[in-house]
Amino acid sequence: MNVEKTPLTLLGLGTMGTALARAWLAAGHPLTVWNRTAARAEPLAADGATVAATAAEAVAAGGLVVVCLLDDASVAEALTDADLTGKDLVDLTTGTPDQARDRAAWAQARGARFLDGGIMAVPPMIGAPGSGAYVFYSGSRALFDAHRDTLAVPARTEYVGEDPRLAALHDVALLSAMYGMFAGVAHAFALVREEDVALKDFASLLAGWLTAMTASVHGTADHLRSGDYTTGVASNLAMQVAGTATLLCTAEEQGVSPELLTPYLDLMKRRLADGHGDEDTTGVIDLLGHRTDRAG
Amino acid sequence: MNVEKTPLTLLGLGTMGTALARAWLAAGHPLTVWNRTAARAEPLAADGATVAATAAEAVAAGGLVVVCLLDDASVAEALTDADLTGKDLVDLTTGTPDQARDRAAWAQARGARFLDGGIMAVPPMIGAPGSGAYVFYSGSRALFDAHRDTLAVPARTEYVGEDPRLAALHDVALLSAMYGMFAGVAHAFALVREEDVALKDFASLLAGWLTAMTASVHGTADHLRSGDYTTGVASNLAMQVAGTATLLCTAEEQGVSPELLTPYLDLMKRRLADGHGDEDTTGVIDLLGHRTDRAG
Repeated sequence: MNVEKTPLTLLGLGTMGTALARAWLAAGHPLTVWNRTAARAEPLAADGATVAATAAEAVAAGGLVVVCLLDDASVAEALTDADLTGKDLVDLTTGTPDQARDRAAWAQARGARFLDGGIMAVPPMIGAPGSGAYVFYSGSRALFDAHRDTLAVPARTEYVGEDPRLAALHDVALLSAMYGMFAGVAHAFALVREEDVALKDFASLLAGWLTAMTASVHGTADHLRSGDYTTGVASNLAMQVAGTATLLCTAEEQGVSPELLTPYLDLMKRRLADGHGDEDTTGVIDLLGHRTDRAG
Repeated sequence: MNVEKTPLTLLGLGTMGTALARAWLAAGHPLTVWNRTAARAEPLAADGATVAATAAEAVAAGGLVVVCLLDDASVAEALTDADLTGKDLVDLTTGTPDQARDRAAWAQARGARFLDGGIMAVPPMIGAPGSGAYVFYSGSRALFDAHRDTLAVPARTEYVGEDPRLAALHDVALLSAMYGMFAGVAHAFALVREEDVALKDFASLLAGWLTAMTASVHGTADHLRSGDYTTGVASNLAMQVAGTATLLCTAEEQGVSPELLTPYLDLMKRRLADGHGDEDTTGVIDLLGHRTDRAG
């Protein structure tokens, strides 16, 4: 059966935009592209893409419009003269949750349905099945449902809710957690790098250990949902804080700055001092604060 | 075939020591125990352990002596009057690498072979096959080889070298990396906890993402071995630092303190400012310093 593929418009041909364009072209989707620097469109034109002279012209060409630009300001600028009436706008530009919320309201006011996306991948992973790449989407469920097969071409999709803020929020939350892990990994490698340790073997031990420890996030989620941070605690905060002295002394012995380690250990100590020695470390999250004035 | 099980002596019956004792008793090893507070030995006596009145008496009872005490000072104190001549001493007490080095020299001077251990588990995981628990060992290879089956009873063994410092170093490095990951996880949960997000689903996404990202440690090890931090870089430092603005703005929008995130991001920025924008994040490790005066 020869199914007609949805025609798309793509604005923005940076490394990520180009990877998206190639994935949709390879899957047989008619594609209209635009980029501020026109030269970046040439290789795609050779592969069958239609190159529009202006963003407004590109938007007029298709019903499904995907933007992947430098930042949210570039989205506003590129779309100034475009008629969005009746369009489905998918914004894969990196931004904050509140930027996504405001861009959604802006697009809806101009007659478009809006879906925000957060890409959990680097460009080489796009269009490569099995790469593990996926995209968080939030906003119009109707838009998502209408185009889910098309959206799934470059990478697996993960719809996280009608609130357009949620895709960016998930994206940022996961990236932030990753940098935390990278900080821990950096400290670990700094401790051992000058020792008689095979770094290849050490990396395998480290990856296995961290993978095993990721299971703890389920307990953390349970704690936050119940509000009781003492259930299922295998090693309580009092014991863990006692153990941190060894971590800090070892850093000192090895001549490694503890700067990546101390902020978390200090919050553990503060939570313990507040009388929560029978919990695990979930209470640290309470000390980071959170938005209470949820703007709609 | 009825194989004779190696008789053991175990000093220290805290939660971990008791778990170790139960594992060896369950496997049929004759066991002599001692604890400063004698009452903790009573349940084990009921299960077949011999209770010694003093640490010296316990040591005299067996050839393989395992200590699992509060700290290194407790080890010195407990063993003051013990005759260690010809004994095999396995120290599972938590400590720093240099404490292990000094304790090894001390034990050898008293006629014992010495093996240091770092337990990568909480007590409920001991003696539970499939729990993932294991123990790093370093020091006398001859001692390890002579007793590897006995040592493998409570948890899988991972021998990491003759230098007695290495077990504690591995232990501390992995725990430090874990706290880094926990810091990232805390920040991530703080961002989403007040939103319309199912925390159970979020935890699954977070665990999957972090597990996928652990693969990056192999690239980091390759970089450190080669000294070239630019090979195989999918997203370079310049691009990553540009992206950090979104992470920090989102934290601010959500009212979450960035204190667990900024130390690592600041080091990324410093490395970029030093002219390494074409690397990935490995160079951050160089900024943490390391021991250059390797005491033997």
